[in-house]
Amino acid sequence: MKLSQAGEDALLASLLRDLPESRKFIGDDCAVVQFRGSRNLLVLKTDCVVEKIHFESRANPELIGRKAMMRALSDFAAVSAVPQFALITLIVPADRSISWVKKLYRGLKRAASKFGVAIVGGETSATCGPATISVSVSGFVEKGRHVSRAGAKKGDDLFVTGKLGGSLRGKHLRFVPRIKESRWLTKNFRIHAMMDLSDGLGADLPRLARASKLGFKLDKDALPLAAGAKLENAISDGEDYELLFAISPHDRSRLQKTWRENFPRLALTRIGNLTSNIKPQTSLSRGYIHFQ
Amino acid sequence: MKLSQAGEDALLASLLRDLPESRKFIGDDCAVVQFRGSRNLLVLKTDCVVEKIHFESRANPELIGRKAMMRALSDFAAVSAVPQFALITLIVPADRSISWVKKLYRGLKRAASKFGVAIVGGETSATCGPATISVSVSGFVEKGRHVSRAGAKKGDDLFVTGKLGGSLRGKHLRFVPRIKESRWLTKNFRIHAMMDLSDGLGADLPRLARASKLGFKLDKDALPLAAGAKLENAISDGEDYELLFAISPHDRSRLQKTWRENFPRLALTRIGNLTSNIKPQTSLSRGYIHFQ
Repeated sequence: MKLSQAGEDALLASLLRDLPESRKFIGDDCAVVQFRGSRNLLVLKTDCVVEKIHFESRANPELIGRKAMMRALSDFAAVSAVPQFALITLIVPADRSISWVKKLYRGLKRAASKFGVAIVGGETSATCGPATISVSVSGFVEKGRHVSRAGAKKGDDLFVTGKLGGSLRGKHLRFVPRIKESRWLTKNFRIHAMMDLSDGLGADLPRLARASKLGFKLDKDALPLAAGAKLENAISDGEDYELLFAISPHDRSRLQKTWRENFPRLALTRIGNLTSNIKPQTSLSRGYIHFQ
Repeated sequence: MKLSQAGEDALLASLLRDLPESRKFIGDDCAVVQFRGSRNLLVLKTDCVVEKIHFESRANPELIGRKAMMRALSDFAAVSAVPQFALITLIVPADRSISWVKKLYRGLKRAASKFGVAIVGGETSATCGPATISVSVSGFVEKGRHVSRAGAKKGDDLFVTGKLGGSLRGKHLRFVPRIKESRWLTKNFRIHAMMDLSDGLGADLPRLARASKLGFKLDKDALPLAAGAKLENAISDGEDYELLFAISPHDRSRLQKTWRENFPRLALTRIGNLTSNIKPQTSLSRGYIHFQ
């Protein structure tokens, strides 16, 4: 069987099946592990973007660099961790101009410094193929504050930040990882489960429900649509990089009130709830799946 | 200017020049940073291998995976750190067979488990170009035990482990990172400066001397040659993945005696010393430099 016939989730699960020590991390946005001699947990994430797969060759290299960094940082928002250090691997065709590489790097650097992340090392290699940028970020989360996709409870409300759909019109290059919002949420509320929406609600919501061994009920009419986006876009476009989280309905009114006070310019929308019925009560088109 | 006209060192230095916070890490084998709330230092390294640049398409995928992991671990040996966690980024042509990817992964996994390293996450992406494997490893080193390329003193002895040259005949796929030896060295001796030999003594020794703001005198007749290798191979072939380190000549006899007792099957050879004359007294052919 060839890679193109297998979904990314299935391939990763298959590759990782024989790694008992890593089983607990599979499918989560970041690896969260004990660090020797520390009261905090070490949080690790690697993410790559590939020319012609994740960006077009003629795209602005500074925005490519920005996006490569922000994607990894968005995964830190997903688990409510603080990113601190980044390593960059640049794999670039040998005939690419140095000025292109420098602009790319400037985008990486500016994105990192917006979130206080230090680029502490890197690697470069030539290639005969497309340019590839791999970003590895490490940071910390306090014990007891880490959120994963599992942990949601039956009856929990489902919330999303921001608006969904139509990301390819520009937001996919200019999104802001919701780290500040995520840290605020875990400081002030008990968040049961959380993830960032990278492949589209239609692919990501079932993942969160599955990780929590629950079903879900989606209120399609409530979905916050980006300007110009339709329901189908909000479900399937992907690259929203907004937070999806589960929280007890007892917290609903306090959450909605204090959110508006703290983030008056960012929508927070209740889009449904988690149910005990594992077969989803709402059928969803699938979001974007790599390798297809 | 194109990448192919610039050396890798020059390019990285240029990219990192505007990153004040990362200046202290440039050119070292790993990034070594403070981790919040820990008495140990966090050690980070990313390394990639690219098809047709670092390995041939027909090479055994399990050995490619092994090499990709071991290269990163060798950098932990260089700074005397303990590797603990790895993230894997696999960028693979969509028409590559899943069996090839699984064998590659088996090589990565076996290499990691030999050194107690847990693979805690990963990413896969399709590409229209060559396969690329990027490995990010994190771990720790005790404060005060970390060794860098800088720190050698005038008159220090220069030692290398193992034998040099001819790595392409097989050792480049089957080398063993010198982590055990490096940890033993820093437990029992004050090592002033250290690195692993990846680009060949001819490229790497001047880097260590330059980082320590010293010159060096190389005793070419003393170089430990691998079977079938000539002097030129020991200097220029690269991919030896042996340790090069600087230590006070006062420790010489105790080092040589206790080394033989602890590592009877691995050579340890004094190959020269560091001098105050910054212009090297021995001219060296350059080792392998990427992008040339």
